[in-house]
Amino acid sequence: SLARRCHHRSAAMLDVPFLPFCAFLGTLGFLCVAMVGTWCQHWRGGFSLDGSSRTFNWHPVLMVTGLVVLYGAAALVYRIPNTWSGPKLPWKLLHGGLALGAFILSVLGLAAVFRFHNSQGTPNMYSLHSWMGLATVLLFSCQWAVGFGAFLLPWAPTWLRALYKPIHVFFGSSILMLSVASCVSGINEKLFFSLKNGTTAYKLLPAEAVFANTLGLLILLFGVLVVGALARPSWKRPDSDSPGSRQVRDALGG
Amino acid sequence: SLARRCHHRSAAMLDVPFLPFCAFLGTLGFLCVAMVGTWCQHWRGGFSLDGSSRTFNWHPVLMVTGLVVLYGAAALVYRIPNTWSGPKLPWKLLHGGLALGAFILSVLGLAAVFRFHNSQGTPNMYSLHSWMGLATVLLFSCQWAVGFGAFLLPWAPTWLRALYKPIHVFFGSSILMLSVASCVSGINEKLFFSLKNGTTAYKLLPAEAVFANTLGLLILLFGVLVVGALARPSWKRPDSDSPGSRQVRDALGG
Repeated sequence: SLARRCHHRSAAMLDVPFLPFCAFLGTLGFLCVAMVGTWCQHWRGGFSLDGSSRTFNWHPVLMVTGLVVLYGAAALVYRIPNTWSGPKLPWKLLHGGLALGAFILSVLGLAAVFRFHNSQGTPNMYSLHSWMGLATVLLFSCQWAVGFGAFLLPWAPTWLRALYKPIHVFFGSSILMLSVASCVSGINEKLFFSLKNGTTAYKLLPAEAVFANTLGLLILLFGVLVVGALARPSWKRPDSDSPGSRQVRDALGG
Repeated sequence: SLARRCHHRSAAMLDVPFLPFCAFLGTLGFLCVAMVGTWCQHWRGGFSLDGSSRTFNWHPVLMVTGLVVLYGAAALVYRIPNTWSGPKLPWKLLHGGLALGAFILSVLGLAAVFRFHNSQGTPNMYSLHSWMGLATVLLFSCQWAVGFGAFLLPWAPTWLRALYKPIHVFFGSSILMLSVASCVSGINEKLFFSLKNGTTAYKLLPAEAVFANTLGLLILLFGVLVVGALARPSWKRPDSDSPGSRQVRDALGG
């Protein structure tokens, strides 16, 4: 019909190619990491392991690098068309390895903030930011462990993998949303802490505030684009378990 | 094949029915609204229009009710199986009407915080929370206006609607993610402002902090579940423009 032909043509007009999109996303992720490093180095006194606020500075850098950027890269591995055919194991190792790297960085990021609090006598785990952030890392640890057990160890039967896969995919996007929400609430709270005494107040919007607010918006943009890319039907592996593709197999008598 | 049969059986095991899920989501949304209202009434002094912090209290209530709960309800309208056949106009009016309600509440929510800041002499629009929140409402206003122009006014040709639909769907989920991130950063920052002098510090985790942190986690859960429901292939209208269903039509010679 005319409507369907129109529909096909319009859908083709919107087809963003995956690899240029990834190049853009990689640039954006790199920019987020560079900006969070610059913020901590230039305005917050740099990095150390002595338990001072310079130990704390590892926290935002490791969280943005691990739980957002590296995590996003891990999540997108199966959207690369090369992964759709041929042996799966190398891609599984890449996906699991990137996720493990992201997880290790986020655990180090937690260690940095706990060490800072403990050496300052500040209580841990009271703010909504900390509750959200710890929930994110705990969910991520379950996601990684169950994913490893189900997809990388050889024992899991096909039906169990098929049953677990949509759950893994759902939690994959959800954990990224939680980690982005944790990052922006953390940047917001850190600016209220830091821009109070001795330096220009947050209210007066000094250069640091504009810089870190912009970082927060770029992290949000990165997260929204990764979640959107994961949800995009035309970027999913064609044999994915959508009702559509099941119907295709049935229609073709496959 | 065996693998595919297993796959079908496992997929069937996971099939959550949409309507019970909606009942759960409705309960969760109602709980979020009740909790934000209780927080402001019981711990923050209640509501008024006099420009004091009791005027501010309308801000969280209107934002959670409009930009999260009512917005989520609007977004899910086309996942109700009844909308998939028969005349579309009533469902479009319901979707657009709920979204308009959500938009009006969020504009009133902005008005409450601007009125509070202006009457206290506090600057507006300096924090990351405010940048995120305003970006969310601005994107929402574009989404509503373009959606109204493309889908409710009769002039838009089929190809334009088909071109714009996936964009509208992408921004629909993205705006909800932004609004949830805005809510949690706002609750976090409000607790730091309020639990400082004259009342128990946030650090000591008084009952109010536990209550409002829990509210933040429930808002996150609501947002993650709505975004997940929107992305779930088996809950989408079967004639949606996934490559799978296009292949079905081609395979069937339709």
